[in-house]
Amino acid sequence: MTSDLPLGTIDIIARAYEEDLGQRGDVTTLATIPGSHQSVAHFVARAEGCLAGVTLIEMCLLHIDDTLTVEILADDGALVDANTVVVRASGSTRSLLIAERVALNLFGRLSGIATATRAFVDAVAGTDATITDTRKTTPGLRALEKFAVRMGGGMNHRMGLYDAVLIKDNHLVASASIQDAVKEARDLVGTDMVVEVEVDTLDQLKLALNTSADTVLLDNMTPTELSAAVAMVNGTIRTEASGGVTLETVRAIAETGVDTISVGWLTHSAPSLDVAMDLTST
Amino acid sequence: MTSDLPLGTIDIIARAYEEDLGQRGDVTTLATIPGSHQSVAHFVARAEGCLAGVTLIEMCLLHIDDTLTVEILADDGALVDANTVVVRASGSTRSLLIAERVALNLFGRLSGIATATRAFVDAVAGTDATITDTRKTTPGLRALEKFAVRMGGGMNHRMGLYDAVLIKDNHLVASASIQDAVKEARDLVGTDMVVEVEVDTLDQLKLALNTSADTVLLDNMTPTELSAAVAMVNGTIRTEASGGVTLETVRAIAETGVDTISVGWLTHSAPSLDVAMDLTST
Amino acid sequence: MTSDLPLGTIDIIARAYEEDLGQRGDVTTLATIPGSHQSVAHFVARAEGCLAGVTLIEMCLLHIDDTLTVEILADDGALVDANTVVVRASGSTRSLLIAERVALNLFGRLSGIATATRAFVDAVAGTDATITDTRKTTPGLRALEKFAVRMGGGMNHRMGLYDAVLIKDNHLVASASIQDAVKEARDLVGTDMVVEVEVDTLDQLKLALNTSADTVLLDNMTPTELSAAVAMVNGTIRTEASGGVTLETVRAIAETGVDTISVGWLTHSAPSLDVAMDLTST
Amino acid sequence: MTSDLPLGTIDIIARAYEEDLGQRGDVTTLATIPGSHQSVAHFVARAEGCLAGVTLIEMCLLHIDDTLTVEILADDGALVDANTVVVRASGSTRSLLIAERVALNLFGRLSGIATATRAFVDAVAGTDATITDTRKTTPGLRALEKFAVRMGGGMNHRMGLYDAVLIKDNHLVASASIQDAVKEARDLVGTDMVVEVEVDTLDQLKLALNTSADTVLLDNMTPTELSAAVAMVNGTIRTEASGGVTLETVRAIAETGVDTISVGWLTHSAPSLDVAMDLTST
Amino acid sequence: MTSDLPLGTIDIIARAYEEDLGQRGDVTTLATIPGSHQSVAHFVARAEGCLAGVTLIEMCLLHIDDTLTVEILADDGALVDANTVVVRASGSTRSLLIAERVALNLFGRLSGIATATRAFVDAVAGTDATITDTRKTTPGLRALEKFAVRMGGGMNHRMGLYDAVLIKDNHLVASASIQDAVKEARDLVGTDMVVEVEVDTLDQLKLALNTSADTVLLDNMTPTELSAAVAMVNGTIRTEASGGVTLETVRAIAETGVDTISVGWLTHSAPSLDVAMDLTST
Amino acid sequence: MTSDLPLGTIDIIARAYEEDLGQRGDVTTLATIPGSHQSVAHFVARAEGCLAGVTLIEMCLLHIDDTLTVEILADDGALVDANTVVVRASGSTRSLLIAERVALNLFGRLSGIATATRAFVDAVAGTDATITDTRKTTPGLRALEKFAVRMGGGMNHRMGLYDAVLIKDNHLVASASIQDAVKEARDLVGTDMVVEVEVDTLDQLKLALNTSADTVLLDNMTPTELSAAVAMVNGTIRTEASGGVTLETVRAIAETGVDTISVGWLTHSAPSLDVAMDLTST
Repeated sequence: MTSDLPLGTIDIIARAYEEDLGQRGDVTTLATIPGSHQSVAHFVARAEGCLAGVTLIEMCLLHIDDTLTVEILADDGALVDANTVVVRASGSTRSLLIAERVALNLFGRLSGIATATRAFVDAVAGTDATITDTRKTTPGLRALEKFAVRMGGGMNHRMGLYDAVLIKDNHLVASASIQDAVKEARDLVGTDMVVEVEVDTLDQLKLALNTSADTVLLDNMTPTELSAAVAMVNGTIRTEASGGVTLETVRAIAETGVDTISVGWLTHSAPSLDVAMDLTST
Repeated sequence: MTSDLPLGTIDIIARAYEEDLGQRGDVTTLATIPGSHQSVAHFVARAEGCLAGVTLIEMCLLHIDDTLTVEILADDGALVDANTVVVRASGSTRSLLIAERVALNLFGRLSGIATATRAFVDAVAGTDATITDTRKTTPGLRALEKFAVRMGGGMNHRMGLYDAVLIKDNHLVASASIQDAVKEARDLVGTDMVVEVEVDTLDQLKLALNTSADTVLLDNMTPTELSAAVAMVNGTIRTEASGGVTLETVRAIAETGVDTISVGWLTHSAPSLDVAMDLTST
Repeated sequence: MTSDLPLGTIDIIARAYEEDLGQRGDVTTLATIPGSHQSVAHFVARAEGCLAGVTLIEMCLLHIDDTLTVEILADDGALVDANTVVVRASGSTRSLLIAERVALNLFGRLSGIATATRAFVDAVAGTDATITDTRKTTPGLRALEKFAVRMGGGMNHRMGLYDAVLIKDNHLVASASIQDAVKEARDLVGTDMVVEVEVDTLDQLKLALNTSADTVLLDNMTPTELSAAVAMVNGTIRTEASGGVTLETVRAIAETGVDTISVGWLTHSAPSLDVAMDLTST
Repeated sequence: MTSDLPLGTIDIIARAYEEDLGQRGDVTTLATIPGSHQSVAHFVARAEGCLAGVTLIEMCLLHIDDTLTVEILADDGALVDANTVVVRASGSTRSLLIAERVALNLFGRLSGIATATRAFVDAVAGTDATITDTRKTTPGLRALEKFAVRMGGGMNHRMGLYDAVLIKDNHLVASASIQDAVKEARDLVGTDMVVEVEVDTLDQLKLALNTSADTVLLDNMTPTELSAAVAMVNGTIRTEASGGVTLETVRAIAETGVDTISVGWLTHSAPSLDVAMDLTST
Repeated sequence: MTSDLPLGTIDIIARAYEEDLGQRGDVTTLATIPGSHQSVAHFVARAEGCLAGVTLIEMCLLHIDDTLTVEILADDGALVDANTVVVRASGSTRSLLIAERVALNLFGRLSGIATATRAFVDAVAGTDATITDTRKTTPGLRALEKFAVRMGGGMNHRMGLYDAVLIKDNHLVASASIQDAVKEARDLVGTDMVVEVEVDTLDQLKLALNTSADTVLLDNMTPTELSAAVAMVNGTIRTEASGGVTLETVRAIAETGVDTISVGWLTHSAPSLDVAMDLTST
Repeated sequence: MTSDLPLGTIDIIARAYEEDLGQRGDVTTLATIPGSHQSVAHFVARAEGCLAGVTLIEMCLLHIDDTLTVEILADDGALVDANTVVVRASGSTRSLLIAERVALNLFGRLSGIATATRAFVDAVAGTDATITDTRKTTPGLRALEKFAVRMGGGMNHRMGLYDAVLIKDNHLVASASIQDAVKEARDLVGTDMVVEVEVDTLDQLKLALNTSADTVLLDNMTPTELSAAVAMVNGTIRTEASGGVTLETVRAIAETGVDTISVGWLTHSAPSLDVAMDLTST
């Protein structure tokens, strides 16, 4: 809790063990490994990438057995080569085997997201644009996945529907205008919350600039349209580009001068990093 | 519970809403949409693929508002073209907007897994091999992801460490032999649970054939080695191939005559299917 | 969830019944009232005040017995005279008696907060100042208490430590300067979250104005100091006055031109509104 | 659990942190305070009062960080002057800042209740009357608030509807008589639970004395009526006075000779004690 | 909650289904029974006995499928012959099969306890003694088991350590005397809770009579000793006999004139009633 | 978790304490025993039997107070004489008294099951039959009760409906034949789960032998019928006898040559072992 990891991490780990261990536990390990047997385990990034969740490996191990000795050998956010050992753990062989899969599943997924984020961040290096995530996250893992985005050098968009206003097309169905919608939002949330409004055209943008919105989301615009939008905004409020952004298109978007580019792919489709645990009897 | 969906699905949905709504709820919607406003929403698969979780959309919608009207227009397991409407829902605009993201995040992810599975199943069509998943699943979502694999035409490997024995290399560190390890496992679990043992070589396979194991996992073998293994086994026990299987390699593996091919990628790295909710005011 | 009430309200009600009913339930009612006995109950505000939580009464009643008939006769936020009936419920006498205390405890407390807030809001009427709450709330009830503040005409300050930055004196112990601290915060949270910084003197205020902070908290300043601060800020960022504000002092503070006045007393010490349930056998 | 604090205290603390920290945690502290920074914190009662919940401060601190050093300098139940340091804690500055508000919110509220209780207990000093609480407590905090009442020198009335019978007017709607109602209750709960019956008049009291009730609640009676009731009871069963009791009226009530006086105000409206945490960098 | 069943019953049922259904559910039923198949089920007491938990069968069925039709044909507390149908349910065959075992396990166990209790109650018929349970209950099921005791005609001893005082030998290790211990207890709990004290000899009993205890527990005394004790007490406080009471010994104990006889065997060792579900396809 | 005890054991213990301690805790102990008082406690099996749950005593003690010193003096599975001390614990008298009943209730129940199982296992000694449990377990305690069966020398049947297929008569209502039903099951669960089918007659058995079932359950057959069935099976699949098996009948059943005999009585009706805690002040 005093680290950057979200408060609910321990519950995620507990549930992961519940689904893996069920009511009978790891019958293979209980049958074949004596309780007194000792080993050393190395957690390894088998592919190169950007790490996220190294301390989660430690949490997973100690959750099963707090007598294990755990050394953290690499930091979250680090870029590592293939076959880098990130954690060394020693103690009960049973405990190491029982913890292995949950630890790897979490670490591989988060490092996959961090690695993907790092690729986007590197692609826009030298521009003023920041890369952010979206709400297109894995149900139950949002806070951890947004943590991984930060470790990859990205910034976080709002955590959920509760901590910032984002007025999209669908929210305008019942409002007389963009101006009315922004005013309604500001009246509800006051000045302690950021208000953002989505626009699809420069005409809509003109209306949005005439409100108290803090940020404008420029949805599915081409780089040419984005450049025109940035010029029209002229620094009066913040700008965000969004919509089907890929590694191929992100650089051109960044060069239009938008402040932020949000990328759903980071959390809904980035592949896991290849990670493993190597065990040696001691 | 009386459907194929796992028992804990409702808790997964509840937690997804908790992380999206927090303590203040959807401030944008509450501010801009009157409580009495009505709309119709279409949930659409924007890309072609294999569906999994259509009824989850319904569960997500009714979880927020059980007065919504929901029509299911496509079945789990169906192969659909791009832009197929799978669910039509109508009622409170607020409710539809609040439910949108959680429903899409679940549906997109599961359909991504089903679509990936279907591709592997199609790739081995005409052989006797079945495609199965692994335990390399998203923490907290295993049962749903394994459901998606079934919808894609795959079979499920064990659900966790508790419902089948799988003796790997690491489990042999403390046993005198493969035969001893299998016997220890059988003594613990009896005959009501399947016992599988991993072998890396034909020499190990010979030992494994001399046990009460039900299945042998042939780890990281080439098609040539697999063919030799299948010949040696000669139908006495079941065979499973595993290790870095891809869409490119799976056909050749299947043609060796193995009974099962397990593919971790299905659940740890398959991209989400592109899905969306279209809203129309009524 | 589609109303303004926080998501966790149902859990608060469930826990309240758990602590009141224990494992044996309402033994008095079970012993003395036959299961078939019917009554009508009127929930009454015995003192004049501002209402908050009228729909909570309904939720509490239906939580115990969803066959009760409940009519809501007054709205949250309404100012009512003493002895106003706000809810009329009819059905099983047992259910009404079992639900009575939990419903009244919640309704009385929230209406006490709304009534207190309304008094402060009325006291600054005609000025541009808004009244906000603080994080000095009852553990477990924060979202409901902040809802009550809104019903009383106040605005909500941040919900917790997670949804806005507020740099206080204690946060400067490790920073070189206010400017550094604001920059560190902005680097972490980006532009999707509001950053506020507390100052105790006009000298500190000058430094704060030279940052990207959105709001400045003017802590424990006299009206004279506040006026000077407002003049120095000159509309460039938002201003908040805080520190021991009472009904006696709030008007003078508002007249200094500050944008916001935060009042901890609203949630940590406002007395409950006097409320009751009158029962008539039918 | 082996102390006087209720079993569920740890859950109350956990929920309080959940609502304060959300999914992102204390962004201000994480941004501005390095993880290695150390401080000492003094928890202070700024006003004079009676303490309750000093050990809760310790529980709150250790819940966030069990490496903090915590010294308890004052006991629950103690009467202290303004500006008394009650707890001294040292260690990670981050941990101290994250824990501050939850610890103070709990400690301030409970000490407010203890202080209020102590005032009533002092007001009846020299009489035989004891002061007790009611079920008009904050939802979710009842056991802690009743603990605070004990620390202030009061006694606890029943914890809930489950651990004692209290037959009120409303329970008589379905019974032929007070005698019938008491008999029905006694038949259900046997002799392992106390049975109390409310009466509004001396006529009703006469009926109540003709039952197996252990206690009679004299509701909203004047001191004169109470004296007559006490005389009529003549020590045969216990007597309790109840109904709108204030600090101004409690002495006269106590002098009528009633055994117990119950005061709802202690838990539904007593203001918090003014408490604070002072931090010094080390 | 408005019935005699404890508040936590629904959680017990939910947990029972969790342990029976796991993450994959009832694979046998899902595989072999189409979702549309309909049946009628009869829940039958195969042996004669006293019923407890008939409405639990309904709760279990509706928990799985609230579209089932359920008729309750016998009441809790009823004495029935072998092969009595107690519940008739119809609807989805899948739902009936999935619910069967959980419903039967609960109903059989509780009816076993009720049947055992009824045997003891009948054995003391004509005396003034009541039969009560103890705290020797199944972990997690205490409130339900105590409900079953009531259905069998018994009374409940305290629900737990929290709702009555029972001073045993072990509690005297730190007290100067029985009188001191009773006084300490009374000072803590006041008069809203019953105080009972255990004595092993008539000498101890003499001391106990000189306290404010409400009840004396006569532990492991012979009928002769009990008669002497009852004579010594002479109606001044209540008496309870306890210790290894069996169906063979209970009558003689009751005839000594003790008020209550507590029997641990009712809840720790009574065998289940033989119950079953008969299914007919419709 | 790294032991043979199920994952959820800690929650079972926590709930047991919740139901015993409620919100006020052990008022007797808090009143009569000073916090500093120390004792030594001996947990004793008063009757001879087979132990299960000795380490649960330790878990229960440390759950209340992790400063207690606990020595385990006997192993689960051990056969002990009456009056054997199995655990010696020392430390806070309060903690020992608070933990006593929960620890004994769990230990006595599990040892009762182990003792009963051991009796059945001994009764079939010298035959090839193994004794197994059923799903007729106490709701909420299944995994612990099946652990106790293992400690008594029995084997576990499936843990629930989710980890093995068992096709009973009722499952055939919607299938054309036993062969169809087995095929449907195998198609759903694949080869990673055991499929068992129940038969009542030798005719049905003949059909079952013509399927891919792994085991056949011979329901309610006489020893003569069982012998004929075993002969017909002739070792091609496994055989299980079931239905009203008692200590009197189990030997004859075992001598028919069946592989497994399942006994519901072990978990639904076995009496608790008599256990106690003896306390000595230190």
